Amino acid sequence: MIGAATRLIVLAGDPISHTKGYAEYAAALEVAGIDAVYLPLHVPGGAFAEFLRGARQMRNLAGIVATIPHKQAAFAASSPDVAARRSGAANLLRPASQGWESTNLDGFGFLVALRDAGMVLAGRHVQMLGAGGAGRAVAMAIAEMGPASLAIADPDAARAAALVQAVAVEFPCLPVAAALGESEVLVNCSPIGMGQDDRLPLPAALIPDRGTVYDIVNRADTPLLVAARERGCIVEHGRSMMLAQIGLLIHFLFGPT
Amino acid sequence: MIGAATRLIVLAGDPISHTKGYAEYAAALEVAGIDAVYLPLHVPGGAFAEFLRGARQMRNLAGIVATIPHKQAAFAASSPDVAARRSGAANLLRPASQGWESTNLDGFGFLVALRDAGMVLAGRHVQMLGAGGAGRAVAMAIAEMGPASLAIADPDAARAAALVQAVAVEFPCLPVAAALGESEVLVNCSPIGMGQDDRLPLPAALIPDRGTVYDIVNRADTPLLVAARERGCIVEHGRSMMLAQIGLLIHFLFGPT
Repeated sequence: MIGAATRLIVLAGDPISHTKGYAEYAAALEVAGIDAVYLPLHVPGGAFAEFLRGARQMRNLAGIVATIPHKQAAFAASSPDVAARRSGAANLLRPASQGWESTNLDGFGFLVALRDAGMVLAGRHVQMLGAGGAGRAVAMAIAEMGPASLAIADPDAARAAALVQAVAVEFPCLPVAAALGESEVLVNCSPIGMGQDDRLPLPAALIPDRGTVYDIVNRADTPLLVAARERGCIVEHGRSMMLAQIGLLIHFLFGPT
Repeated sequence: MIGAATRLIVLAGDPISHTKGYAEYAAALEVAGIDAVYLPLHVPGGAFAEFLRGARQMRNLAGIVATIPHKQAAFAASSPDVAARRSGAANLLRPASQGWESTNLDGFGFLVALRDAGMVLAGRHVQMLGAGGAGRAVAMAIAEMGPASLAIADPDAARAAALVQAVAVEFPCLPVAAALGESEVLVNCSPIGMGQDDRLPLPAALIPDRGTVYDIVNRADTPLLVAARERGCIVEHGRSMMLAQIGLLIHFLFGPT
């Protein structure tokens, strides 16, 4: 129940009509015993910096979840932690004594979701698809877990090459390349498969047999996951990553509960 | 339930810890079938203008309720309607095509509360106590209802005189004076009687016998109301004014529902 002591967690994005997770946030905050609400704010692209100056004047604001198209602006307007810095993007801000502190929970949320699903990255050959915003955060998270190798593919070859280079700078001992081939662990960070999209994000022959497939799309029956199940893979989809991020967000904003 | 289509009504004040009405707003919005939440925002004095610039970037913000100490800043930063202009203060803003439009619901809320309580102002001798922000709005509302006379008292004589002058400019035919005396209708707009305050806001002998007493303090048992009941007055307190303002607010922000 909202009251005079309620604190706010806002989701700022454009558009916001497709956003999910409100019931899940409400349940997690209640379980944690935190008097806060999670709310959508429709902030247009380009307006984030001005919004942020106004938001800094809201003393009961606990934090801001930045989503498309604001993750780069959120990064630029804050003091980033290592996860945000490696991602070049921030998806969560909290007020600091001066300005804002930020993090990026995509990578850590991905790792928590994999752990909960019993999926292992260490020592495995990993293929990633998609070198966009979420892909960048996930690539850094994968690299941190010590895979045998990491291959990154994106229809935009320059974007894939740039992410490979960024990973190589942070993890100089990891074999990382812009490539598309066979793997033991396949991770889709491209948007292919969202909504009604019935495409596979890679040729079907490259889906591993009895391997591991994580699709960050928040949909249990993407064409990739359907095909991967038929090949005996263990699979998981983006909902678990969203749920993992809720717990991480509560910790970042409210400390140990 | 908060979701991607929820709109926001924010209460901006400093402090906000004493604010009330959250359950009442939630119930009224639900009854009206409006997907919106009413939320407190702790915005410090002096920060309202910057907050407002940021808030203008929130496209799902339905409106802002401005309370102490922001009513003058809200007025200055918006296009006021006649109620806000006469009050010199705004307590409700809505986004306009350019900037903000504002009103002040204190006066109209007071009139609706009186009507609902069967209290009559037309043709009566009215004594008001308190010439502060709410008093100014209430004085203009009383004047509009055609009382026989209006007397205004305030411990700050200059403030009472200024309000008398402002009322006289707007309502040149109304007998209005800075005075404290006998009356048929007594309206307390001073804060005396709030919380644990056990003082009367005027000498007991000036409480009318079998008259009408409205105390805008949101407390049913202020010393004034207790004494007035003993003298056979019909009485009402500020909760009804708050409830009336909720309906008026919904109309101002969302139109006919």
